[in-house]
Amino acid sequence: MFYTTDNNVHGLRHDPFKTLVAPRPIGWVTSLSKGGDINLAPYSFFNAMSTDPHVVVFGSQGRKDSQTNIEDTGEFVCNLATWDLRDAMNETSAMVEPGVNEMERAGLDAAPSRMVKPPRVAATPVALECRYMQTVSFPQKPGHPQCAAVFGEVVGIFIDDSVIEDGMIDITRMRTIARCGYQDYTSVDTIFSMIRPQV
Amino acid sequence: MFYTTDNNVHGLRHDPFKTLVAPRPIGWVTSLSKGGDINLAPYSFFNAMSTDPHVVVFGSQGRKDSQTNIEDTGEFVCNLATWDLRDAMNETSAMVEPGVNEMERAGLDAAPSRMVKPPRVAATPVALECRYMQTVSFPQKPGHPQCAAVFGEVVGIFIDDSVIEDGMIDITRMRTIARCGYQDYTSVDTIFSMIRPQV
Repeated sequence: MFYTTDNNVHGLRHDPFKTLVAPRPIGWVTSLSKGGDINLAPYSFFNAMSTDPHVVVFGSQGRKDSQTNIEDTGEFVCNLATWDLRDAMNETSAMVEPGVNEMERAGLDAAPSRMVKPPRVAATPVALECRYMQTVSFPQKPGHPQCAAVFGEVVGIFIDDSVIEDGMIDITRMRTIARCGYQDYTSVDTIFSMIRPQV
Repeated sequence: MFYTTDNNVHGLRHDPFKTLVAPRPIGWVTSLSKGGDINLAPYSFFNAMSTDPHVVVFGSQGRKDSQTNIEDTGEFVCNLATWDLRDAMNETSAMVEPGVNEMERAGLDAAPSRMVKPPRVAATPVALECRYMQTVSFPQKPGHPQCAAVFGEVVGIFIDDSVIEDGMIDITRMRTIARCGYQDYTSVDTIFSMIRPQV
């Protein structure tokens, strides 16, 4: 089948877009409001964009507290969501009022970051400490939310020693989870290797 | 452990960044040069950024033919990489001279797109037809490559009927593959569901 996104008429039960671009890594973003309130929310429109400098980006569907906090304070942390933390991560996806501490609400402890003020999730095996770079706002239709991409430079990286084996990261030990559209997730349980061909 | 990215000294065997932000979906990008040559290359710094409008982004580590073609011609296609296409996808990651048709080289057939000129990979179950929106270039250090993020609006979507079941996309039937750093990939073989909590 084929359809155009101008009317998005596809006859399927939901917009399939989020299932087509998948599995998506989850940036579980900690930020602080100007008043110092902690915010924690998961974003699966998230990825690395560059290794030189180390840059990550996440897409916000409408203006959320994370975007406002990051633009206000210039800093955030991307915690890694794993199988063990799946329920807590999901809990922080609830739409709550600004000022509610999602970390406390999900029963998570905070641990201090080194290079930025927002704390990391203490139980996460990986946290990327980020400095805000810029926002790219997308064309907005009247009555629709203002969607945007928020870029950050990763300035500090925390890795729990338990996921390092022989100087390499063991992603199956972390069992990173990823978003697949609908209400679906996957976890990295098995990997396979392919060597990039040399010409 | 903790390290800062300004010197990137971590004592690990490789920069672990690409294993930490994972699994990454693969945008297997078709583009045309100004002269009409087909280019096909995989990008795992790739994700959806917005559903309204439908926006995707990919990060280019140094200026590659895809970025140049897209900026020159304004169009590209993101094909989905699946388990069945893994070897062909890997073959197209080889660094070849501009003008070499990676699609032919990997033994892949092209199929025409509907809304844009670059063709899709005929064997892919999903192809996102995109119009170029803008490029965000990151701060470049002297002697380092110019890394950048390339945004496109998805204007047309092809989905092979074989991956649709009861009006929904079956991602485990597509067996989408994703990048995990090092030489590692994963495929979506199993999923689990979590319902977003209502407050």
